[in-house]
Amino acid sequence: MSEDETTSLSIDTQTLGTMHAADIADLFEHTTPTEHALIMSILDAEKRAELLVYLDARERRDLLGLRSPAQIAELVGELESDDAADVIGELEEQTQIRVLAAIESEDPNEAQEVRALMDYPADTAGGLMQAEIASITFGATASEALEALRASQDDADSMHFIFVTDQQGRFIGVVRMARLALAHPNSPIAEIFEPKFVDVQAHVDQEEVAQLFAKYDIITLAVVDKNEQLLGRIMVDDVLEVWAQEADEDAFRMVGSDADELQYQHNPFRLAFIRLPWLLINLVGSAATGWMLYLFQGTLIDHIVLITFVPVITAMAGNVGAQSAMIMIRNYAAGRDQERSVWRHLGRESITGIFIGGPCGILLGVGATLWHGSWHVGLIVAISLFLVMTVSAIIGSLAPSIFRRLGIDPAIAAGPFVTTANDLIGIAIYMLVAATVLSSL
Amino acid sequence: MSEDETTSLSIDTQTLGTMHAADIADLFEHTTPTEHALIMSILDAEKRAELLVYLDARERRDLLGLRSPAQIAELVGELESDDAADVIGELEEQTQIRVLAAIESEDPNEAQEVRALMDYPADTAGGLMQAEIASITFGATASEALEALRASQDDADSMHFIFVTDQQGRFIGVVRMARLALAHPNSPIAEIFEPKFVDVQAHVDQEEVAQLFAKYDIITLAVVDKNEQLLGRIMVDDVLEVWAQEADEDAFRMVGSDADELQYQHNPFRLAFIRLPWLLINLVGSAATGWMLYLFQGTLIDHIVLITFVPVITAMAGNVGAQSAMIMIRNYAAGRDQERSVWRHLGRESITGIFIGGPCGILLGVGATLWHGSWHVGLIVAISLFLVMTVSAIIGSLAPSIFRRLGIDPAIAAGPFVTTANDLIGIAIYMLVAATVLSSL
Repeated sequence: MSEDETTSLSIDTQTLGTMHAADIADLFEHTTPTEHALIMSILDAEKRAELLVYLDARERRDLLGLRSPAQIAELVGELESDDAADVIGELEEQTQIRVLAAIESEDPNEAQEVRALMDYPADTAGGLMQAEIASITFGATASEALEALRASQDDADSMHFIFVTDQQGRFIGVVRMARLALAHPNSPIAEIFEPKFVDVQAHVDQEEVAQLFAKYDIITLAVVDKNEQLLGRIMVDDVLEVWAQEADEDAFRMVGSDADELQYQHNPFRLAFIRLPWLLINLVGSAATGWMLYLFQGTLIDHIVLITFVPVITAMAGNVGAQSAMIMIRNYAAGRDQERSVWRHLGRESITGIFIGGPCGILLGVGATLWHGSWHVGLIVAISLFLVMTVSAIIGSLAPSIFRRLGIDPAIAAGPFVTTANDLIGIAIYMLVAATVLSSL
Repeated sequence: MSEDETTSLSIDTQTLGTMHAADIADLFEHTTPTEHALIMSILDAEKRAELLVYLDARERRDLLGLRSPAQIAELVGELESDDAADVIGELEEQTQIRVLAAIESEDPNEAQEVRALMDYPADTAGGLMQAEIASITFGATASEALEALRASQDDADSMHFIFVTDQQGRFIGVVRMARLALAHPNSPIAEIFEPKFVDVQAHVDQEEVAQLFAKYDIITLAVVDKNEQLLGRIMVDDVLEVWAQEADEDAFRMVGSDADELQYQHNPFRLAFIRLPWLLINLVGSAATGWMLYLFQGTLIDHIVLITFVPVITAMAGNVGAQSAMIMIRNYAAGRDQERSVWRHLGRESITGIFIGGPCGILLGVGATLWHGSWHVGLIVAISLFLVMTVSAIIGSLAPSIFRRLGIDPAIAAGPFVTTANDLIGIAIYMLVAATVLSSL
C-alpha cells in the first residue's frame, strides 16, 4: 500500500525527502499556498522538478506563475526532455520564449532538444518521446559499452534497454541493461544483442503507439526517422497515461460529451457548454421521432393503449443499438482490428438481434395482450419490438465502421446520435406495423 | 512500424527466428494446422513457449491439446512463473495435475512456485505477480550485488529494478540495474539505493494495482506478505493487460452487457444470452414508463399533441443522466477517487443540469408553441424538459457513488438501469406538469 496521505503538515524534512513526488503532489492538493512554499523550500532540486510533473495542470500553473523565467528554467532543467517540453508547452507564449532563452544560456544543447520536442504534435510518437537515448554500437564489447554509457550517467534512471546502432548509425536492436551488466567484460555485444522487431516514426498516432506497447509487452520503444536514425525513445509510463486519456475520451464520447470535461470539473457553465451540442442534436432528433408519432395521431387517438409502448420501443431500440456497436468499438480501441470482418460482424449482430428480439417481442406481446385484453395490441407490439430490435442491432453494428471510414471516432456510435436515429426508425416501424395490422382487421 | 504480416508461409527459418512472438502469433491466426506444426518445429524452445503466451486462448487450447503432459511441461518450463501458472490454469484439471507432476520431476522448486501462484485469484496482485525476484541485501557493494545476481542470470530479462532487503529479509527499497552496472565496483548499495515508496500485498485487487502503476510511473511493483517479505513482483506489461481488460469491462457494462462478449464473438446465441438480462429489466422498466403514460390517457386523448414530446422527454432524460454519471465513473475508474466530494459533485451537476435544462427547455417550448400554435403546450414542455433534465442530472450524478457503496461497479450507472429510471421519472414529471397546467387554465 502507498503511505497514508498526510493532511496536516506535521511531516519533517526527512519524511518529505523520501516521499515519492506523486505522494507529495497529493499532499499539495490538501495544503495551503503557504504550506506549498514550505514544501518547495524543503525539497531538493530534483524532487521539486519531479513534483511539477505530478501536479494537476492547474496547480502547476499556479506554482509556476509565482516564478521568474530563470527560476522556471532551473526547475525544468532537472526534468527529462519530454517532461520539460510538456511543462514549457503549457506556459504562455511570452513566458515560453523567456524560459527557453534562459535554458539556452545555461545549456544550448538542452534548449535545442526541448525546442525540437515541442514541435511535434502532443498526440504523436514525437510528442511522447524523450530525447535522452542511451545507445551503443554493435561492434563494441560489454565493457566498452558500459564505459560509453557512463558518460551519460545522468540519464541512467530509464536505462533499462540500450539501443544498438550499426556503423551507419541505424537502429538495429537492443541490449538489456541487465544482460550487459552481467556479461563478461570482453563479451561482444553481438552475443547479448536482440535484433529489433519494432520501432515507430515520429508522426505515428499515440493510440497506435499504445497498441504497440500492449502487443509486444515492451517498456521502451525507439522513435526513428526515415533513415532509421534514432530520434528518441518512448517509455511505458507515458503510454499508461495515453491509455488513460484514450479511455476517458472514448467514455465521454459514448455519452455525447468530451474528455475536456475533466479539466473543467469545477465549472458547471463550461460543463454545460461542452455537453450541449450533442444534446441539441438529440433534441432535434427526438422531436423528429415525436413528429413521427404526430403523423399517426389518428391511429393513436383511436387506440390510445398503443402509447403505452412508445417508451418501450425507444428504450429497447437505443439499448440494443449501443450493445451491437460496443464490440466493434472495443475491438477498434484495443487494436483488435477487424476491418476485414465487417460483414461477418453484421451477420452475427443480425442473428443476435433476432435471438434477442424474438423473446423480447413474444414477452411484450403476451404481456400487452393480458394487460389490455386485446390480442391485436399484443400482435402489434410483438411484431414491432422484434423488428425494431433486429434493425437496431444491424444499425448499431454498422455505425462504428462507417464512422471510422469517415474519420470519426467509432466510440460515437454508442452515443446519442445513433440512439436517436434508432428511436426514430423504431417509432416509424411501430406506427407502420400498427397501421397495417389495424387496417387489415 | 511492425513488420508486415506474412500471410503465406514463404518465410525461412531465419526470419521466423528473429520475429517477435506476438508477430508469430498473428501469423498463426492466418495459417493452417499443418503450417502451425511447421512453424513450431522451426522455433527454438524459448520462442515456442513465448508464442504460447501470445496466442488466443482458443488457439492455445488447440495447440496444447495435441501435446502430452510431458511436452506441455517442457514448453511451460521455459516461461516466467506467472505465464506458466496462467497457461497451466487454463488446462483441464486432470491435465493440470499431470503437467505439474511432470514439472515436479524435472524441477521441484519450479513446480512449487507455479502451484503457489495458481492459488491466488487471477484478478489480484498475487494472480498478476511472478515468483522470479532479483534481490540483494542492503549491506552489499555493487560488485557483490552483481555477483549475486549472476547466479539467477536466467531471469535477467526483466531485471530492471533490483529489490533490496534488510538483514531480516524485509523489502526496503530498490536499486536500478543501470545504476548498479555503472557504479564503481566498491560502491556500497546504500549510495545508489532508492527507499521504497510503495508495495502491495497479494490480496490487493488488480484495478488498484493498475492505478498504483499509473500514479507512480513505475515498471515493477513488489508484492510482499504481512512481514514485508518479498513474495514476487508485478511487471508493467501485465498491468497494461489489466488496463485493457478493465476498459473492456467498463465499456460493456455501460451498455448493459458484459466483457464476456469478447470471448463469444462467433456465437450469436451466447451473445444474445449475455445481453438479454439487462434488456429484460429494461423492458419491464420501460413498460412501467408506458404505464405512467397510460394513467394519463385522458389528458393525452384531449391533448394528443402532447405525445409528440414523449420521445424528447425520455431521450433527454437518459442522455443527461448518462453524461452526469460519466465524470464520476471515470474518476473512479482512473483512481481519481473523489469519495469526499460526492456533495460537491452533486452540487455541480445540479447547476450544470439547470444550465443545460434552461436553454433546452426554452428552445423546445418556443418550438412547440410555433409548431402546434398553442402556448399552453409550449409552456408545458418548457417547464417539463427543464425539470426533467435537472432531475436526471442529479440522479445521474448520485448513481455512481451509490452503486459503489453497494459494491456494484459504478460503470453500470451510465447503463440502461439508470436510463430507464430516468425515463420513468421524466414521463411522470411531464404528465404531472401537463395535468397541472391544463387544469389551472
